[in-house]
Amino acid sequence: MKYTEPMLREGSLADKVIIVTGGGSGLGKAMSTYFLQLKAKVVITSRDIEKLQKTAKEMEESTGGEVLAVQCDVRNYDEVEAMLEKTLAHFGKVDGLLNNAAGNFISPTERLSANAFDTIIDIVLKGTKNCTLALGKHWIKIKQEKATVLNIVTTYAWTGSAYVVPSATAKAGVLAMTRSLAVEWAKYGMRFNAIAPGPFPTKGAWDRLLPGDLKDKFDMKKKIPLKRVGEHQELANLAAYLMSDFSAFVNGEVVTIDGGEWLQGAGEFNMLEQIPQEMWDMLEMMIRAKKSK
Amino acid sequence: MKYTEPMLREGSLADKVIIVTGGGSGLGKAMSTYFLQLKAKVVITSRDIEKLQKTAKEMEESTGGEVLAVQCDVRNYDEVEAMLEKTLAHFGKVDGLLNNAAGNFISPTERLSANAFDTIIDIVLKGTKNCTLALGKHWIKIKQEKATVLNIVTTYAWTGSAYVVPSATAKAGVLAMTRSLAVEWAKYGMRFNAIAPGPFPTKGAWDRLLPGDLKDKFDMKKKIPLKRVGEHQELANLAAYLMSDFSAFVNGEVVTIDGGEWLQGAGEFNMLEQIPQEMWDMLEMMIRAKKSK
Amino acid sequence: MKYTEPMLREGSLADKVIIVTGGGSGLGKAMSTYFLQLKAKVVITSRDIEKLQKTAKEMEESTGGEVLAVQCDVRNYDEVEAMLEKTLAHFGKVDGLLNNAAGNFISPTERLSANAFDTIIDIVLKGTKNCTLALGKHWIKIKQEKATVLNIVTTYAWTGSAYVVPSATAKAGVLAMTRSLAVEWAKYGMRFNAIAPGPFPTKGAWDRLLPGDLKDKFDMKKKIPLKRVGEHQELANLAAYLMSDFSAFVNGEVVTIDGGEWLQGAGEFNMLEQIPQEMWDMLEMMIRAKKSK
Amino acid sequence: MKYTEPMLREGSLADKVIIVTGGGSGLGKAMSTYFLQLKAKVVITSRDIEKLQKTAKEMEESTGGEVLAVQCDVRNYDEVEAMLEKTLAHFGKVDGLLNNAAGNFISPTERLSANAFDTIIDIVLKGTKNCTLALGKHWIKIKQEKATVLNIVTTYAWTGSAYVVPSATAKAGVLAMTRSLAVEWAKYGMRFNAIAPGPFPTKGAWDRLLPGDLKDKFDMKKKIPLKRVGEHQELANLAAYLMSDFSAFVNGEVVTIDGGEWLQGAGEFNMLEQIPQEMWDMLEMMIRAKKSK
Repeated sequence: MKYTEPMLREGSLADKVIIVTGGGSGLGKAMSTYFLQLKAKVVITSRDIEKLQKTAKEMEESTGGEVLAVQCDVRNYDEVEAMLEKTLAHFGKVDGLLNNAAGNFISPTERLSANAFDTIIDIVLKGTKNCTLALGKHWIKIKQEKATVLNIVTTYAWTGSAYVVPSATAKAGVLAMTRSLAVEWAKYGMRFNAIAPGPFPTKGAWDRLLPGDLKDKFDMKKKIPLKRVGEHQELANLAAYLMSDFSAFVNGEVVTIDGGEWLQGAGEFNMLEQIPQEMWDMLEMMIRAKKSK
Repeated sequence: MKYTEPMLREGSLADKVIIVTGGGSGLGKAMSTYFLQLKAKVVITSRDIEKLQKTAKEMEESTGGEVLAVQCDVRNYDEVEAMLEKTLAHFGKVDGLLNNAAGNFISPTERLSANAFDTIIDIVLKGTKNCTLALGKHWIKIKQEKATVLNIVTTYAWTGSAYVVPSATAKAGVLAMTRSLAVEWAKYGMRFNAIAPGPFPTKGAWDRLLPGDLKDKFDMKKKIPLKRVGEHQELANLAAYLMSDFSAFVNGEVVTIDGGEWLQGAGEFNMLEQIPQEMWDMLEMMIRAKKSK
Repeated sequence: MKYTEPMLREGSLADKVIIVTGGGSGLGKAMSTYFLQLKAKVVITSRDIEKLQKTAKEMEESTGGEVLAVQCDVRNYDEVEAMLEKTLAHFGKVDGLLNNAAGNFISPTERLSANAFDTIIDIVLKGTKNCTLALGKHWIKIKQEKATVLNIVTTYAWTGSAYVVPSATAKAGVLAMTRSLAVEWAKYGMRFNAIAPGPFPTKGAWDRLLPGDLKDKFDMKKKIPLKRVGEHQELANLAAYLMSDFSAFVNGEVVTIDGGEWLQGAGEFNMLEQIPQEMWDMLEMMIRAKKSK
Repeated sequence: MKYTEPMLREGSLADKVIIVTGGGSGLGKAMSTYFLQLKAKVVITSRDIEKLQKTAKEMEESTGGEVLAVQCDVRNYDEVEAMLEKTLAHFGKVDGLLNNAAGNFISPTERLSANAFDTIIDIVLKGTKNCTLALGKHWIKIKQEKATVLNIVTTYAWTGSAYVVPSATAKAGVLAMTRSLAVEWAKYGMRFNAIAPGPFPTKGAWDRLLPGDLKDKFDMKKKIPLKRVGEHQELANLAAYLMSDFSAFVNGEVVTIDGGEWLQGAGEFNMLEQIPQEMWDMLEMMIRAKKSK
């Protein structure tokens, strides 16, 4: 069978309610859609409720499943608790959490303000912590029999990477949290795992990350032994496996799906070394111009 | 769905021919059986041809699939080449290799002879290397479009473990080989991955590894955050995923499936520290007595 | 020679100015003292300026070196910049940064508020980031020829650990930052390394971390293959090596000094599993009582 | 102080007897020489006794120390035991073992015979095992109070590397052995550590490894964030620290000293991908021609 096809048996996620942060676009949307096809009910969250509701409707139509869109800035614990309440009010329970919401930008670190660095830590690390803590406390309180948390990290959480230092830093924290709680909260029936994806291009995220002609200049495919980038369904297949009961004995694990990229050259963005200072100047201006619109 | 059920869509391995070393018993048999259910054709190898042929017949009857039993001591490159020839003569091709044949024994390292240590290196490390090299040269020669190698390692390949030092040593070598070739041979269409299983008890292997009342004394379940050992189908599900095209973008990866055991306490057999010298003496006598029969 | 003796040749840090955050007590003080003995000039920082000045005077008297005490909450970037200005005003330059300031507490994670978790991330991860960013920008701006950053992490930054999850999370982030900048900022003459210490008991920190009779109940020595805890001079020797020019080719590395503890059983505080809920209740009350004084 | 200077206090290794396999040339000679300067007595071994004796004499003259040259093929356990006997007969005791003997060659893996692959495993992995087992049994038997084993591995023991697969495989095994015995044999007073060196060019080894104009074509310096290769004294300083009592609490650790090379791009020799088949043909001919002389 082709790797672009769905892999799990029908109904593999039947009766599960899964929250996907950042589930309204990009890879979060791709994973949510496959969860729905496997008969899960899905809650998608992000800050932009209009876009979220549009996506929810679109996903319901394409899959025949049920999607709840909830506005939530994962940086605020109160909003996360409110999002959980809405989920429980609507679906009556929750079985899984996919911490997918993230932020990233490429930049020489010396060009970052302390605040800019903090923003990434807050979204990625504190956001994941907030959702995990709120859900975990809930599951412990109601003595839920089993629950699953899946975190999206990066291939450079262990080796680090130049030019994406806030993301490397935050994602490494998420990985340690994954492993710590896999041991500590196993007694409450919770499992924790992570996926470290290599390049799975999405229109939005990659355009933002590598603006202008950077995408062409640094062809990610060349850095991957398999000489191709990933297809969204490949990531969705792995995520569905780790979210399903079939992976019940996988706990505290991070599965890398990158075609061997990090083994060929650790530090996914180290190659940006070749960008001259003038180009960084130009890139900064482009980004500022975009923001001021 | 329950984790003891098969997870992949029907026919996920249709038309694939897969060699499973040590495929005649234990976990090798469990994985081979699931490959057959997914419509693969399977070659099983081991040194004991009689037992192998009996198992092959049994597997064919239970799955309706086709199994070829080939006698092969993986330590000898000539025998490996002959086994490959028989596979090609019978099935016309080969698509996957599961390096599962292994040897292990628990012992204080100072009680091992240099030869005993070498035996484990030869079976595990040189055996895996022999099969990988023979298959890899074949695939390169005939310009095979795609092929997959899956190696069974251990959770202590990275941290090491007391009392199983030859196995730790050899399996670490296998892991480095997996990652090296994932990069080097990707250009020839080959993928290389590994599984690091925690405790999946099998009658034979575990009785040999923990003889007498050691199994009761050291209850593996207590060392695992999830408080249970693995079921064979859980390992088979993961192995089938990594052998199938659905994992086409997973390359150079080792997936740990151990319930979180290594994170709770690295070095799977470090706890044998508690065995007194007198008991090691007794164990040695038991093993010698068994061998001399 | 005994491991409790200083190891480097005299004057190994001559003419270097080194900032040690959290340098006024515990391990920070031990390392600072040895830096002074090796003829470095040292800046120590913490929030408690009175205690800091007392320690500074004591260290000057015992070593004959020069110490500047600067009040600084590393969580605030402005305070960090001010601390750097004071350092430059006093010593005219700075050559090294030892990110040693930290916070930690043991607790079941479900008993933590989102805010308590954030506090550890802010001190450990954002604090290290603030100092690193301020110093790095300064060194790049003045085109400093060479500079060294040394970060104190933990042995469970990679494996995680139950019951100290905020610390595991934050320290993992610090480790990724260490490795990322080791690559990115090498071109500016900066080196980045880390030390992962096992148990080096200090009166203050360990009493706080394991209050009441927990210290006796969980004898750290039993968890260490070498059956002893570390001596402060052993850590100071390693820190001085990594801060000195002798380690000029060591970059992006984390050196573990724990007697083999993490290899014997990953997750330094996983054993706290044995503490009953009632005891956690009592511990919480003790801590609250102490705070309200 | 400059990093090319010796770093430890005088007499740091006084009264220690240290065996250095492969101690007669290259890095082994550099480390042995520094051990002698620090007042250790040294046994150097290799297969070429004439060269060894010449080197021993030279080292004695330059350092004023005492060197014993012993012919030994580490692949043969009997020869290793005989080497130990000679050491004990001459010096009366032995305190440290530096497993430095190694073999390596660059080659596309499909061009290697099974035998060629085995040769590297036998020298590197079985050789290290033989020396470790013989010394360990001896130390346990005479109840030696303390002893130290230091193993030289590679930066690609964990990530693997293309084009040096036998070496990656064997060195990974050595690393797992290091960590396993660090836990298991700590109770007998033995410590085990490793060094993973990046490029420290030596006339012999690097000419053999990168023959012809390969050395110029693939400038190792460019792959290292610090933009230089290592100096022998830097490695000797680290080795002396790990061999001395100053590192008494460092156990089971591998210290990487590579200028950050592996973090910039894992898999030290992955870049050889760019060599065309014709050049590999030519290289093979050159090597064969050299051997037949």
